Parts: sequence; structure tokens; C-alpha cells
Amino acid sequence: MADFTDKLKPAEPLGPSILASDRTNSDVPVQRLTQHLFQSTGHLECQARILPYLQRDPLFRKVKQSNLSRPERYRLGLARAKKLRRLADEHHWSIDDQEMATYLCDDVSPYMVHTSMFINTIREQGDEKQRAQWLKRAENWEVVGCYAQTELGHGSNVRGIECQAQWDPKTQEFVLHSPTLTASKWWNGSMGRTENHAIVVAQLLVPKSPSSAELINHGPHPFIVQIRDMKTHLPLPGIAVGDIGPKYGYAPMDNGYMLFDRVRVPHNAMLSNYSRIDANTGTYSKPANPAVVYGSLTAVRAAIVMHARLVLARAVTVAVRYTALRRQFSNRDDDSRTAPELSVLDYPTVQIRILPLLATAFALHYTGAAMQALYARTRADITKGDFSKLAELHSQSSGLKSLCTDYAANGIETCRRALGGHGFGGGSGLIQLNADYLSKPTVEGDNWMITQQTASYLIKRMEAAVAGKGEPQDEVERSCREYLRNRDTARPSDHAIFNSDEDIVFAFTRRSRYLSYLAHQARNVEKKPWNSLLLQLRKVSNAESESLLVSNFYNAIHDTAANLSPTLKDHLTRLFRLFAYYTIDNNARDFSKSQALKETDLDRLPDAIQSLMAEIRPHAVNLVDAWSIPDFLLDSALGRYDGKVYEDLFDRAHRQNPLNEVVFNSDYRSEEIVKGEGVEELRRIAAKL
Amino acid sequence: MADFTDKLKPAEPLGPSILASDRTNSDVPVQRLTQHLFQSTGHLECQARILPYLQRDPLFRKVKQSNLSRPERYRLGLARAKKLRRLADEHHWSIDDQEMATYLCDDVSPYMVHTSMFINTIREQGDEKQRAQWLKRAENWEVVGCYAQTELGHGSNVRGIECQAQWDPKTQEFVLHSPTLTASKWWNGSMGRTENHAIVVAQLLVPKSPSSAELINHGPHPFIVQIRDMKTHLPLPGIAVGDIGPKYGYAPMDNGYMLFDRVRVPHNAMLSNYSRIDANTGTYSKPANPAVVYGSLTAVRAAIVMHARLVLARAVTVAVRYTALRRQFSNRDDDSRTAPELSVLDYPTVQIRILPLLATAFALHYTGAAMQALYARTRADITKGDFSKLAELHSQSSGLKSLCTDYAANGIETCRRALGGHGFGGGSGLIQLNADYLSKPTVEGDNWMITQQTASYLIKRMEAAVAGKGEPQDEVERSCREYLRNRDTARPSDHAIFNSDEDIVFAFTRRSRYLSYLAHQARNVEKKPWNSLLLQLRKVSNAESESLLVSNFYNAIHDTAANLSPTLKDHLTRLFRLFAYYTIDNNARDFSKSQALKETDLDRLPDAIQSLMAEIRPHAVNLVDAWSIPDFLLDSALGRYDGKVYEDLFDRAHRQNPLNEVVFNSDYRSEEIVKGEGVEELRRIAAKL
Repeated sequence: MADFTDKLKPAEPLGPSILASDRTNSDVPVQRLTQHLFQSTGHLECQARILPYLQRDPLFRKVKQSNLSRPERYRLGLARAKKLRRLADEHHWSIDDQEMATYLCDDVSPYMVHTSMFINTIREQGDEKQRAQWLKRAENWEVVGCYAQTELGHGSNVRGIECQAQWDPKTQEFVLHSPTLTASKWWNGSMGRTENHAIVVAQLLVPKSPSSAELINHGPHPFIVQIRDMKTHLPLPGIAVGDIGPKYGYAPMDNGYMLFDRVRVPHNAMLSNYSRIDANTGTYSKPANPAVVYGSLTAVRAAIVMHARLVLARAVTVAVRYTALRRQFSNRDDDSRTAPELSVLDYPTVQIRILPLLATAFALHYTGAAMQALYARTRADITKGDFSKLAELHSQSSGLKSLCTDYAANGIETCRRALGGHGFGGGSGLIQLNADYLSKPTVEGDNWMITQQTASYLIKRMEAAVAGKGEPQDEVERSCREYLRNRDTARPSDHAIFNSDEDIVFAFTRRSRYLSYLAHQARNVEKKPWNSLLLQLRKVSNAESESLLVSNFYNAIHDTAANLSPTLKDHLTRLFRLFAYYTIDNNARDFSKSQALKETDLDRLPDAIQSLMAEIRPHAVNLVDAWSIPDFLLDSALGRYDGKVYEDLFDRAHRQNPLNEVVFNSDYRSEEIVKGEGVEELRRIAAKL
Repeated sequence: MADFTDKLKPAEPLGPSILASDRTNSDVPVQRLTQHLFQSTGHLECQARILPYLQRDPLFRKVKQSNLSRPERYRLGLARAKKLRRLADEHHWSIDDQEMATYLCDDVSPYMVHTSMFINTIREQGDEKQRAQWLKRAENWEVVGCYAQTELGHGSNVRGIECQAQWDPKTQEFVLHSPTLTASKWWNGSMGRTENHAIVVAQLLVPKSPSSAELINHGPHPFIVQIRDMKTHLPLPGIAVGDIGPKYGYAPMDNGYMLFDRVRVPHNAMLSNYSRIDANTGTYSKPANPAVVYGSLTAVRAAIVMHARLVLARAVTVAVRYTALRRQFSNRDDDSRTAPELSVLDYPTVQIRILPLLATAFALHYTGAAMQALYARTRADITKGDFSKLAELHSQSSGLKSLCTDYAANGIETCRRALGGHGFGGGSGLIQLNADYLSKPTVEGDNWMITQQTASYLIKRMEAAVAGKGEPQDEVERSCREYLRNRDTARPSDHAIFNSDEDIVFAFTRRSRYLSYLAHQARNVEKKPWNSLLLQLRKVSNAESESLLVSNFYNAIHDTAANLSPTLKDHLTRLFRLFAYYTIDNNARDFSKSQALKETDLDRLPDAIQSLMAEIRPHAVNLVDAWSIPDFLLDSALGRYDGKVYEDLFDRAHRQNPLNEVVFNSDYRSEEIVKGEGVEELRRIAAKL
């Protein structure tokens, strides 16, 4: 519908010319930086290969999808996920290709739990026969399954779940049963509507002897269970299963509930690679080393950190591009009436919200990579029967999962608010990202809770260091011993964070060890109750995680194998310092108390941060470009590469908004809603309430 | 549909018994506290009177509304708003009654801008003739209008808007015109689909003389303009107007865009109570005192603070009730295998997120009340021609709007995360609240930006105090002078925040004056550029606002007219201290640097906060009950008064979820989405993309 708005242009200066000039006036070698970030993973090549498939298929158009209802979003998500799998078959996509497609599609897939937890659990927990029975069919998506662990009344505390699997020696079956309402499985992804099988985690109850009525509870164990008819897709008898309803984000995902009314499953339903029941004697045997389970959790958490960096880079890309071209207010100190409006990103109040997050994306990147490397080494050791690195790995991954997902979740919202009014609009591209990402601080270990695991490990190592017997068990204990040696003699004046980046790393270590030592004192010497220490323990964990982020960042810049050009090294060093200074400034008192640095240095920090931001500002557009987040994924009028922000916002509003196709009756005396339709529309809507 | 789940109960202990016991075991006099909070306003009586109307009308049922699409939510919002107005007519509701109905309905009304900004602007800016012409019809909703100020390219900086109103002396008309795309009106509530009139703010361009081609720009002025046909509701010729599309929250609100293609409006379209154009000579005259405009902005901001406290109280009500009854993990230091799981609210890591926010709700309450009182006094002074308090009022309201809406917006999300997994679910009742509230930090003055106004005022007063001539102009200047007198002699050991609540108030004042003084030094003595000081200025503003919150809280507790019982005073004092200590702890270094308190006191703070929280914990349920947020408004399974959390969550999932009425085809090889419907459903969805 042509009208007079078609020929209107935005006021000068135009977005494209502003971004072009920012790009030209920065010496950041964008391509080299991109290669530096992604070279080893093949991420970019994969992205370039898969992107066109989605771009040319109308099913993956995003602009109007936020007008769909939640039940429609599930339908769309299902259609898209099925289509992606058909494309994968047709074009022989690898698993990485398929994950890239889901990432670019940006809909959580209703098959996500099937392709990850369901298949992985069978692979790890199933014995050879079970793997043979299930894996092939699962990989072909003939059988599609979910993972049913958490319950209505039981989340983090897996030992507390109520669902029962009672061994019946007579029939050699397990009886799955939900004794209460709170025993209902709850939140389990893909279970509500999509999958026909489930791994059900239940308390294994076994009669003391075949004839005994007394039951022994062996704790939670996994069972593979068919839950829906393979033809009708209706729940099997004795099973109540469904979707739990609308929630924060994740619209295309059918998180579910499920209850069992004495449902019998065969002996081979119990996944028996580790624990097992002898079908004839009813004897229970358990795994030699229960720690094996930790390994895969760590892999998941390393992946979460790597994912967090891309999410944050995406939000920062939108924020940097838009605030670089957005103009608002002229300089207050400029008296001329014709002074041009300033770039919003030139204001320190905008910089302080966006640029430390840009630096954080890099920090997460290097630590994610380091975690993956540590995981690979640990994995190799485990194969050789060496479990010694497992505890450190688990400790690191818990604290880092907690801190990094908090950074990303809060970072998206900080970026969104920094966009002002338009950040609140659908064209920001941050609304769905924000809502979808907010599950991360809670899932795979609640962020507030799992910091206990990190702190607990650090306290143990500090305790061992205080005892000081034999060789230190690992790097952390060695560092604790060093702290103890220098505790009383260290002077903060020894550390010059503004002259030496190494001293920055040192300051973070010092503060972390100091807090670990205090926690050790409180727990082991003063014998304080664990729960009374929880706030302190969280501090311990975060300090250690920040220390890891800083040292991994430092090591990456000084890794000669990375072969960084001096220019690139300079830019990365500025980001490193910004991340470090900003973090110190937010925790100034702990750094001071731990004698990690000088009071006068703390006083200098705000100015140092502001200067660094001013230095980074001219390069911000290039620094986000290096992350190579495609426009298709950004789905953001504000963040698009070419800077045509206002044209895109107007196009979405004026030409792609279904609400504008309808004329309404706004006379309050009438019950009519849509002009000319009488009360029909009111009835339609009311019927849905 | 009856099934085996009907007879299931949650595991013991049951929610209702836990809440009942918490209620019994606390000596908080709930009713007296409720009266203390609301007595003077009639809020409770109004709530009790209006609530039944909404409860018995199926149009206001909330449980399933989150399944509607955004276009459906607009239709529903329109239907509800029209219904509420019909109820108001029928039952002779006052304006307060109508506002209460909208508050309880919890949908932003598509007529919201009409009933507030549109009518208020005519009343304040229209001359006598214009008021006679428009007000009656507007109050009867015959004419319904919006307020079109911000534009696609221009938000906070009103002077920068591009829309033009050019005076044509020949025809004695104004020509409204949008010269660019960025001149499009944007974000204006109720404009997209609902209203037929608008107040359009445009640059007033007047020829230098009737025959001259040279134009003088008199800046932005308001014009009242019909934008849609009164019969067809279609846009008038030369006007492009519509809804801007889906956004964060506010689904029932049709925020709009609008462009003009040389649209002619008559001379009396310009609201002329202050500025006016003489129709015959084209002479422009402007208001004697432009400050009058500030007044109403302040009233709006005081209302925002009062609203923020109810929003926060609502989120805290949900968080306290649910975490009080939720059980997770037994005590780690309890060796018995049968130790019961602990109430989640007993963990300090949960308390630290929720209880300071509970205290904050009270802090906001007393400051909102103080702002309203100050506004009333200032208003009375203005009527007498005394504008002297206006600047202080404006300064206070800017800083407090910024800080308090940040508290509330962040507080909702903090509460939501503290709920763990269920906080992420629709049954939390916090999802729509969160999304809807997130506009507040941005609208009516962006929170980061308006802190400049507060800081600017404080710097001026400090400058005057340094000059020290004559009597201090106001309370702030008097306090600045006192600071200057004691600046060098003050010793932190004089202030004993753990012994004297008055010293807490003093510490906050001292730190605020210290930061004001530094800012004055930087700006007036060192002559630093304004924009380089923005981060420092924000700190100045927040410190002053926190100081106001603390002193208003203190004054309210010690106001003898309030007639508080000793028990109630004790409870409020604990909340006062928690708010104060928590705020100090988060800004410890500034308090230390300003000599506002002792280093050793800062060291004691974390333990003091933890002890206070342990003291408040047993009373938390009663303390939120006192806010009297009805279940109808909470719309929260987790926060319901009776504690039947799990029954409600299950009911919503199993019986009230439309997605569970459909069986899907999850075989990826098939394009069929809904079982038995072939490709029909896929086509339906794809057509909407």
C-alpha cells in the first residue's frame, strides 16, 4: 500500500554513514580478530554454510513471530524443528551443522532434550544391550524422548524426589508410582506434547528379600519408559502427562508434568551401565566410582559458558551499533545553538553499561576455551583411571556457570535499557533473547546454590594447605600455600595494577585466597554452621571465578602461539584492563582488605575506567563486528550491520504489523471490538479466558 | 475430565499449615500495620468496594490470558477498558474507583493516556474557550485522545523533535508536517488503534512578518488535532498512523506512530493558555513563568514512587509466601538421615534477596507519602505566587523517580529468581508484572539521564553554601553549610550506627553532602566538562535519594502523630535498619571516604545484616500480609494467601492449558503438525510469518 511515507528519509546524519565512518576510523583488524576468536572451532565456516538454508525458507522468517500466541509458537517451533531435521537428512548435516541451524533459527527446539539429555543418558547410563536396543532408533528420531528428573516439589535436591520405582520380584517388573501431587514430574523439556519416551528418575525401592515387605531405598535411578502410544500419540494408561503452560520465554518448548498411577515397566527399563538389579535374585549393585557422573555435567557447564559469550556478544552488538549512531542532546558545554547532537555512545553513562560488557564477552570466551581444554585433559586422564583433576574441574565449572550466566542474563537487560525507549520495542531484537536466556541462571544448578560447591572445594584445599603435609594435591592447594607463606609479609604497595598486567592477575588471586582463608577459618576453626556462611561462601566462589576469568584472559593475550599482532594485542589488553578494573571497582573493599592493592590505586580506578572507555569507544563498532553475529540471528532493527535502523523500525510498524490491518471500535458504549463485526470478536476472546 | 490425579495431595507439610503457623507465631499486628499504611488514603476501602465487580465478571479472568497473542491481548484490553467505563457509569464510580479498577484488572488500559495526559493537557494548557470546547466531550469519552510528543528519532531531548507546525497567515491555519522519517511520532500510547484525537507537540514555525518567507522557530508547542474519522475510525487524509508492534510487556496498549503530510489545522488547535499566536497579526507571546510545567511532572513522579512501592510489595508478597512454605534440602550440619527439608526462606542466600526488598517497599512508602505532602505544599505556595520550593521539589522528584523505579524493576526480577524454577513459570504471577514494569526506568525521564537534574541542583546549592552569602535559600543549602562547617573536624567515631538510628540518618546525609561537595569541586573549581562528570553526578543523585529514603523512613517511625504501638515500632525499626545497613554495605567505600562512619562498623555490617534478617524472618509472612494485595491481583499460584501452591500450579497445567487440548504429530518426516489435520495447520501458521 503505497503512501506518502514511502519517500521519507531519516534526518541526517544517516546511520549507514555513521557506522561506515566508525569502521574506517578504527585500526582494529576485524578479520584477524574474528579468526583469532573462531579459527580453531570451525564456527564461522559452519555458520556461513548453514545460514543460507534458513534465510531462503519462509518458515524461518522472524519479524512477525512475536505476534503469535504461545500455543502457536509451540506449533511453529515444532514445524521448524521437524523441517531442520529433514534438511539435515537431505543435506547430510553433521551434529555441529544441526546445532548451528538451531542456533540461527533461535527457537528452542521441542526436540532439544531428545538430542541431548535423552540420547546422552542412554549412551552413558545404558548397558550394552540397552544401547543396542535404543540408540539407533533414538538417533533416527523413531523414538523421541525426554528426561524426567525434577518434580513439582523438588528441584535442586534430587535426593528429595518422590517418584517411586518399586521392584516387584514376582513379575520381575518395576512399578512406577507418584504417591503425591508434589511427586509429579515438572518442568521436563519436550515432555508436555512432543516426546513418546522418557528417562524417568525415580527412587529405587527394593524388597529386603524377595518375600519381605520391607523396602530398601537405593536412591534416585534412571528408567527408560514409553509414555505415549506410538500411533495415536496419546498417553499410555496410568500416565497423566501434559504441558505446564506459558512461562518466561521458551515459548516453543513444551516443558511438561507427568504422574504415574502404578505403571509397570520391564526389568530392562532400568538403565544399568552402573547400578543394576539382578532380575532373579533382586540383588542391587552400585557403581565403583560415582564421580563419573560429574564429568558430563562439567561438559554441559563449559558449553553454557561458551554459549553465554555469544549471547552477550549478541546483546552488545545491538547496543554498540545503535548507541553509536543514535544522536541525543548536544554538548551542554557547547554554547552554539546549532551544536549537533552527540552520539549516545559518547556519554560515559552509556559507556559504563555497554563497554565493560563488551570486555566481558571476551573474558567469557577465553575462559570457556580454557574450560573446554581442561575438560578434554580431565576426560583423557579419566580414561586412564586418573580421577585426580575431577574435583577441581567440578569446582571451577560450578562457580563459573553461576557467575557467567549471571553476567550474560544481567548483561542482556543492561544493554536493553541502555537503548532507551527503542530498547523496550520489538525492533530491539533483545526481547525474546532476554526472556529465553533468563532460565540459565536457574537451570543446571541454581546460580546462588552451586557456589557452595566451589567454596567447599576451596575451603578443603585451604585446610590441606594449612596442614601443609606432603606435596600439594593440585594447583589450587599450591596457590593456597603460597598465600599462607606471604600472608603477613605482603604489602599492597608491591602490586602496581596500573603498571603491570601481571599484578592485576596477582591481585585477583590474592583476594580470592584471602576470602578462601577467611571461610576456612570460619568453618574449620570457629566451627560456624554451614548455612550461616552461605553469603560468605558465595563471595568466595565469585572471587575465585573472577580470578579465573582474569587469568585466562591474561594468558590468552600472552600466549605466543596465538601469534597476535601488536595492534590486536593492544586492543585486547585494553579490554582486559577494562574488565579487570571494572570488576575491582565493584568489589573494592575486598581487594583493599586482602591487601591485594593500594588504597590510592582504588581511588584512581573510576578515572582509569573512564579513560579506558574513551580509548575503546572509537573501536567499539569494529570490536563487535569481529564477533560476526549475522543480521538473521540478531533480528534487530537497532543492531543491523548496515545501520538502517529507522527505516527498519518504520517498516516493521507500518508494513508488517497485523494489528494495523484491523479497524477497531473505540466507543466504550458499544460491546463491538472490531468495527463492523458486532459482538462476535468479544465472544471469541472471552471464550479463551 | 476426572482422572487419578484428582485425589492426589501434596507431600506434607502442607502449604496452608505452614503459612498458618508462620502467621500465628509472629506478633506483628497485621491489621494495625495495614491501617497505618493505608488509613489516610482510603485505598483499602476502595479496593474492597471495587474488587467484587471484577471477580464476578468472566471478562476479567486472568489465568489463561497469557495464552493469547499480542493482537488478541489488545482486543481483550480494549474490551476490558470499555467494560470498566460502562461499570463506572452504571455504578457512579469516582476517578479513584476507576483507577482502582484498572489497577486490579492489571491490564494497561488503551484509554490510559486519554484519561491522564490528554485531559490534563487540555485542562492545563488549553485556554478557557478550548477547555469549554473539549473537556466535557473528553470526560464523556466522546472524543478520545492521546499525547504525541516523542518521535522515532527523538525521545528525551524534546527540543530536538522534527514535527513542524507552520503558521500560514493567509489562511490563519497551522500546517502540520513531518519532514523526515525520524519526525514520525513514536511510542505514543493509545494512538496506534484506539484514539480519534491527539495532542501533537510540534516545532512552532512563524513567518518573521506576514509577508516574509523567513521562519522563526519558537520551539515545541502542543496542538489538539483530530486524527481519525469519527464514523469510520479511519485516519484522516494526510495522516499515516498505526500501532508500532509487539514490545516488552504492555500488550494491551497500542503505542503508535504518526506522520503528517502537510495537514492543515485551525488557529484554535494550538493550546493557548500560556503561549499563543495572534490570529490576525501572527504575533507570538509566551508564558511569564515556564516553571509551571514542572509541577505536574512532579505529581506524576510522586505517583510513580507510590506505585513502585505497591509493585514491589506485590513481588515481595509472592516471594515471601512461597519461599516460606517451599522446602529444599535438609540442614547440612544435621547428620540424621531423616532431617526434614528446610524452609527456603531460612537460607541467608534467599533472605538477602527478598528481605531487603521487603524493607525497601516500606522505605518507598514513606518517601512517596513525603513527596505527595511536599507537592501539596508547593502547589499551595505556587497558587500564592511563591515558586521558591519548586526547584527542590523537581530535584527530589527526579532523583527519586530514577532510584525508586530501578529498585522496583530490579526487585521484581530478583524476587522472581529467588523463586527458583517455579519463578520461571507462569504460576509465579511475576512474568507480566516484570515485563510491564520494565518501561518505568525509561519513561517519564530515563533513569540514567534525569539524575543530572538532581546533581545539578545539589551542585548549585553547594556552590551557594561555599559562597555563604545571606540566609540559606532552602533546607539543602542549610545542610550544605553545616557540612562545610564540620568538614574538617568531623571524626567518623562520632557516629555510632549500631547504637543510634539518628546516626544512621546522619551518616547518609554526610555521605551525600560529601559527594555533592566533590562534584561542586570538579565542576566549579576544576572546571571539568559536564559530560565527563556524568558517572559522578549519578552517584551524587543516588546518594541524595537514598538519604531522603532513610530520613523519611526514620521520621515516619518517630512521628508521634502516627501513634505506633511499641511492637509495631520495633518491627518497623528493624526494617528501617535493614534498609539502611544494606544500602551502606553496597556503598561502603563512599561512606568510609566521607568519614560518615567507622571502618570497624563497616566490617561489622555483613553480620549485622544477617542477624537482622534472622530476626525479621519469622514475621515476614505477616509483614507482607499487611500490604493486603488481593489474590485476584497477585494472580499467582506461588503467592496465594492460602498457601495452596502445588494444587494451583497443577490445576493451571492440567486443567487450564489450551495446549493440552491438542494432540500433535511429532514424527519429523511428516509436515503434519496437529494430529489428523494434514498440512492445514502448518499453512495457517506460515501465513502469519
